[in-house]
Parts: sequence; structure tokens; C-alpha cells
Amino acid sequence: MPNNLDAVLDHADKNLDASLKRLFELIRIPSISTDPAYAEECMRAAEWLTTELRGLGFDASVRPTDGRPMVVGHDPKQDGPHVLFYGHYDVQPVDPLPLWDTPPFEPVLKQAPNGETQIVARGASDDKGQLMTFVEACRAWKAVTGELPIRVSILFEGEEESGSKHLGPFLDAAADELKADIALICDTDMWDRETPAITTMLRGLVGEEIEVTCANADLHSGMFGNAARNPLQVIGDIIHSLRTPDGGVAVEGFYDGVAELPDDVKAQWERLPFDEKAFLGDVGLSIPAGEKGRSVLEQLWARPTCEINGVIGGYTGEGFKTVIPGKASAKISFRLVAGQDPLKIREAFRAHVKARVPADCTVTFESHGASPAIVMPYDGAFTQKALGALTAEWGKEAAIGGSGGSIPVAGEFKRKLGMDALLIGFARIDDRIHSPNEKYDLSSFHHGIRSWIRVLAAFAEL
Amino acid sequence: MPNNLDAVLDHADKNLDASLKRLFELIRIPSISTDPAYAEECMRAAEWLTTELRGLGFDASVRPTDGRPMVVGHDPKQDGPHVLFYGHYDVQPVDPLPLWDTPPFEPVLKQAPNGETQIVARGASDDKGQLMTFVEACRAWKAVTGELPIRVSILFEGEEESGSKHLGPFLDAAADELKADIALICDTDMWDRETPAITTMLRGLVGEEIEVTCANADLHSGMFGNAARNPLQVIGDIIHSLRTPDGGVAVEGFYDGVAELPDDVKAQWERLPFDEKAFLGDVGLSIPAGEKGRSVLEQLWARPTCEINGVIGGYTGEGFKTVIPGKASAKISFRLVAGQDPLKIREAFRAHVKARVPADCTVTFESHGASPAIVMPYDGAFTQKALGALTAEWGKEAAIGGSGGSIPVAGEFKRKLGMDALLIGFARIDDRIHSPNEKYDLSSFHHGIRSWIRVLAAFAEL
Repeated sequence: MPNNLDAVLDHADKNLDASLKRLFELIRIPSISTDPAYAEECMRAAEWLTTELRGLGFDASVRPTDGRPMVVGHDPKQDGPHVLFYGHYDVQPVDPLPLWDTPPFEPVLKQAPNGETQIVARGASDDKGQLMTFVEACRAWKAVTGELPIRVSILFEGEEESGSKHLGPFLDAAADELKADIALICDTDMWDRETPAITTMLRGLVGEEIEVTCANADLHSGMFGNAARNPLQVIGDIIHSLRTPDGGVAVEGFYDGVAELPDDVKAQWERLPFDEKAFLGDVGLSIPAGEKGRSVLEQLWARPTCEINGVIGGYTGEGFKTVIPGKASAKISFRLVAGQDPLKIREAFRAHVKARVPADCTVTFESHGASPAIVMPYDGAFTQKALGALTAEWGKEAAIGGSGGSIPVAGEFKRKLGMDALLIGFARIDDRIHSPNEKYDLSSFHHGIRSWIRVLAAFAEL
Repeated sequence: MPNNLDAVLDHADKNLDASLKRLFELIRIPSISTDPAYAEECMRAAEWLTTELRGLGFDASVRPTDGRPMVVGHDPKQDGPHVLFYGHYDVQPVDPLPLWDTPPFEPVLKQAPNGETQIVARGASDDKGQLMTFVEACRAWKAVTGELPIRVSILFEGEEESGSKHLGPFLDAAADELKADIALICDTDMWDRETPAITTMLRGLVGEEIEVTCANADLHSGMFGNAARNPLQVIGDIIHSLRTPDGGVAVEGFYDGVAELPDDVKAQWERLPFDEKAFLGDVGLSIPAGEKGRSVLEQLWARPTCEINGVIGGYTGEGFKTVIPGKASAKISFRLVAGQDPLKIREAFRAHVKARVPADCTVTFESHGASPAIVMPYDGAFTQKALGALTAEWGKEAAIGGSGGSIPVAGEFKRKLGMDALLIGFARIDDRIHSPNEKYDLSSFHHGIRSWIRVLAAFAEL
């Protein structure tokens, strides 16, 4: 381990305010990728990051795609193992805006009842706060030693929140340039407030939008009610049909290829300090909703699911309107586990829906991505070094676990570049990512920077 | 019959342009009652009508309520039978605005492929165009003879499209002033393009809004999907549960008190020139959606129904967001027939919903009105005179029929003032009321004015 590690950590501590100021600058750019109205803001965020990386001595550039651009940077140092760091600069939409206590793109520091100082803003955690921990770690190394301990490349994506449509083609084209010994992905949670984690299982995702059209115009329910098909009734029937009475998913063949959890893994998960009641209680719930007879942890990490992410149709304003809408739509997604083929699931879902749309009505489908689940190895040298570095920083043994979320890039790295990834993040479960008042604890940001400083040092020993 | 009838009809013909100009003035006032943002516009419409009536010699005034105001006018003439004419000056909201070909509150005349000239605007038919037929009929009588043939009072309501919440209390307070020999209500359709109609059966209406809350915030479906209850799934399950596989309504006790149609009425309806295929085909459908084994006409006039009028929840913007919303809501209404108690139906619906909301979730209800169905006598002297007048004007025998819609004021007149009502309207089934590009045929307006001129003359013979 480089013997100036303490000096680098000390530099990061002393310059935390400046690091925070830079993070705030990035957050203030409203880089919402799913809404075309924010395309220019995404470009601004990409340019801002490129400028930062260049300032650190990286050979960095904005790389156009048919959607939002990528940012790629390479540090000049060629010694040691080669890592590719990945983060995404795009963020989720902010609605419902009225539920934000402060404007989403004006970051503020707030004192929380649990003693944490919180950075509150859209993207504070997902993923601007997270990706900047690595950038600031590099800055500290350069400031103290003039160079990084190992060879580092960086890839920032701008469409993670909107289906990563252009990531695959980009990786195909830039495979030689981007392939490293291992990828580092910073877009996941800690195990709990004090315990760092490396995530090794990720669910896949199939996102679908359906629009059901019945009559060719909105109808008056007095004149047509009973006789004219109502697309909201059709969509309600479809939503109901997607679940079995036992809480399973009713799409034909959905569980094909899904293996039961091995007994030893099951036993290991049961020993984990996971409190189902507290997990649900934190969000105001008490009864697990999914498959009966399976633990919440198993449901989240090892079982696939179907979720209704949005429905709209008919009159939804103030008051009442006795309308039978001509059309209505729903956004529906599936989280997949190992063994499930996302394209087969998509086709099975579409067939399931078509079979439930009356013959004189129509349905259209729009895909919002289809990515398989992935499972990472966790017994390699990089993993062990990273575990040691995280444990040293946080004073608690780092955990290895699954995640219910999907990070398609990890699968793409494996498939297209043959490269494994370590998923290390410092977000906390209460960060409200994708929700109003998203936050990142200042301690996540600070110790995140320090964690990467240590990880880079540890990798230099390989 | 006054022997100057022809002169009055002739005057109406010659002054149609001026009548139309006044209708356009009224239409331009965006008097949407359901949205509090338009309260002042409703007041403007009430004041405009009051000014018009005063100009015709009526003792007219705006009458405040706790909601939108009423307009009441009395003609000074005290001879002959006393009729109370009713119409409503409020209109439905205009969304979805992008589907309008022209701005909804800027009336235009359009030439339709069927040869009709159409007045296109929100409220052109429902109910501004309709109520102005009566005002212009009175104007013609006054212009030619200096007075009306009979005693006339007028009531214009401003909350018909938003549940008529203040109508009952207002009628209670003004019962003595408003009670007449019969009410004339102009808010219904013709039988078909050429055949006028008097409507004698009206379905009742129960409007309910439900909001289901599960988690206390929007959740990330990756982190919580499967384990956290999804309110859109709950609402989908509820919507599905409201219908039986046979297309009936599944709320317990819903059909209590609903009588089967008498055989002679059924036989009479089967003889009516009603083309189910064309009725559904006009709006792009071909398969009746309601109770199996019943004709469309029976479904619309004599059978109660449940319709989903609006659903919203989760992310509904461009693109995709893998959110599990904390809450979601639906607007649901029931059309009732004779024998059903709206308050019992409301309670049964609420119990039905509550039984389907998981124990750790909550549901709130908001009522948007509850009115019973009504059946009018159709063998009285007023009815026979009106039938004769309508037949004379349109050259085809006027029809007597039911209506699937609800006009709560007819029930209120009966209950609170002991007064029957004749429902005579000149709207056509393709008027797109409550929908984008609402229209009123110029021939409906013109012959509607002439029809009332004749009805007033015919009543003078009683």
C-alpha cells in the first residue's frame, strides 16, 4: 500500500467543502434523460464532467450517441491493474413537484433528526453524489502524489434512468478502448447506515408501456355507459390478471428457469441482520405484498416481480366528469432474476395482454428496455481487496449481498467486454432516490471519497 | 292557438343570425363549474343571462348559493298555464385540449360532410345552445306580439356538470317562487337526426372518488418491488372486482329493487328504429360491453351500470420511471335505474372497496353526488300538446323514450316542488358533449327555437 495513504485521506478531509461545492455545481444542471425537453441540460452535464476530468489530467471527451452523450476519460498513468469506473450523470424526473420541500435542482444542506447532514436535491444520491465520490478520490491522490496509484479509465452514461438504449451499441464500438481488468460501478446502497456493501446479484428489468383504445373518442357515460367498452375497465382487468391470488406473477412461463435459492444461501440470508418489520415500517407498511411463504429479502433479491409504475386515463382533474375515455395507458415493469430471458418475458407479457383486450378494441406496446439479471463472482482478488479497504474505512466488516434493482450496465460489461464489475455504493436506503426530497448523507459523500482513496491504494498491491 | 304563430316563426327565421351571435357571446364565457379556477367565469355567465332576460322584460336576478349562482327570471304575464323552464349555463372541462381542432371557447361554424352546419365549441350543445333555444323563442314572441302566450318562469343552474350540490337547498328555499304547473327541461337528445323526442326515463347517478394510500412515499421498484404493496395494483384489483364475468355490476345488493322491463315496454322498444350496430359503429366499436343477453337500448335506458371515469397514479409522463407510487386514485360512477337507492348504493360500493384494501393501506372517499333515477308520466295534457307541437315542427312523429344520462333536477323538481317535467331537447347523439370538438347543429338551434315557439302556443290552448 502506498505509504502516503494517510496524507491523501487527510487532504480529502480538509478539502471536503470544495468537493461539495463541485457536486452542487453538477446537481444544479437538470439532466433529466427521459424527457427530450432536457436534452441540452444533459449535454451541459456531460461537458461539465469532461472539463472536470481534463482538469485532473484525464484525456477526456464527450462522446455523442443517438441519445444523450457519454463521457469517457483515461488517466495517462499506464502502470498497475486497469479499472473502468462507471457512473451516470442523468437523473429521474422530479414530479410530483409540489411534494418537494425545496426546489429539486437547488441543492441544500439539511440537518436530519438522526444527526446526519443531508444533501437534498434530485441526483444528490442517484447518481451524481455517488459518481463524484470517485472523481474527488482521484483529485485527492493527484493533489498529494501527483498521480493515481493504478491505471484508471472512466465512463459516465447519460441514459441510465431512461433505459440505457444507446449503451450497448456504444460499448460495441468502444470495446477495445473501454475493456479493463475490472469495472467499478458506484450506483448501489450500503448494507445499512454503518455497514458498507459490495453488491453481487442484480435483478434484470423489462419495461413496457401499453395503450388500450376502445371508442374512437371520449364518450358520455350517460349516453354510452354499459354498452360501450371502457378502456380503464380493460386495464383494471389486465392489472388484476397479472397477479395470482398467492402474490405471484401470472404471466405464462414467467417462472421458467427461475431456480430456488440454494439452502446454504437461504440460511446465510436468514442470518443477515435484516429486519422485515423495520424495512416495511420505514415506508409506512407492515404486510409484505409479494409471494406468500417467502422472506422479504428473498422476494427482493432472488424472486422476479411485476409492478405497475403508472396508469392514466379519463378525467383526472378537480371535480368529476362522467366520461368513458376513448383510450387509457399503463406503464408496467418486470424485475427479473437469473435464468429468465427478458425477450421471452416481454413476448409472454404482450400475449397475455392481447388475450385480454376485447376484439373491437386495440392495444399498442412500447418497450422501455429489456435486460437480464446478473450474478457477479465474489471470490476474486479485486473483491477481497475492496472488502478490506471498505472495512478499514467504515470500521465494520463490509457485506456482500444482492440488490432488487437493475443496473443494466453491469450485464453489458460482462456480455460485451467480458469484464466483471464490482458494485460499490454509499447510498442509504432512505435516500428517496426517484422520489421527492432525494438526499445523500454528507457522511456517504465524505466516506465514499475516502473509501475510493483506499480501494485505489489496495488495488495497487495486486 | 294564437293566430300569429306563423309571424313569430317567421321572425325567428329572419333573426337567426342575431340569435346565433348571442349564443356565441354566452359560449365565449368559459363557465366550467367543476374547477374553482373558473368561479368568476360562472358568475359572468350568470350575469350575462340575467341581463338578457331583463332585456326581454323578465324580472330576473342572479341568486347566490354556496357554489355557483342560479339565475331566476319571471315574465310579468300571469295568464295561462305556468311553466318553469330549466337549463344550465355551466359546462364540462375541456381537456384533453390537444384534441380540439379549434379553441374550445371560440365558437366557429363548420360545414359537416352530412350537410349540417355545426356550431363547434364547449357548451355549444350542452347546455348553452339548448337553453338559448328557449330564450330566443321568448324573444320572438315578444318581438311580434309584445308578450308570451302563457306564464313563464326560468331557472338557470350553474352546477349541473359538477353534481348540482346546491340545487336541493336552493329549491327548498325558493319552492313557492318556483313551483309551476310543469317544468320544461332542455338538456336531452332528439331520437335521431330527424325525429324529435320527449324523454320520460332518466337514470340516476352516484359519483365517487377513491384514493388508495399504501407506502408513505413513492418507492423505487428495484428496492421495494414485490414486497411493498402497489396502490395501482390495489386499484386494478378493485376495478376488476366491480364487474361480474357476465358484464353485470358485482357490488353486493346493487340490483336490489331493479325491476325487469315489462313485456309490453320491451316489445315496444324492440320495434323502435334503433340500430345497435350503427350506434356502436359510430364510435368505433362493435361488441356491446355490458350485461350479456340484454339489448343495447335496455342496457342504456333500463339497466344500471358502473363506469370508471378516471384513474391516475405513478409516473405518467414521457418515458419510464420504475416507481411504486405511494398513492393512486380513481373516479368511479354508477348510473342508476328506478328502484335503486343511491345512498344504499354508495354505502355498498364503499364497503366493497374497503374489503379489498389491504390492512396496512388506507382508502378515502369523496362523494360527487347521489341522485335517484326518475320516470315521468307521459299521458298528461302537457305531454300531448308538446308532442303535437314537435311533430308539427319536424314533420315526423315525436318519439317518447328513455335516456341513459342523469338530469338530477328532474327528480328534485318532483321531490321538492311536486312538479312533473317534460324533457325536450334538440341535441344529437353525435354532438360530442363532454368531449373535444363538442358541436350543436345549426338546425338543432334553429328548429329548437321554432319548436319552443310552437310548444308555448300549444300550451296556451290548455
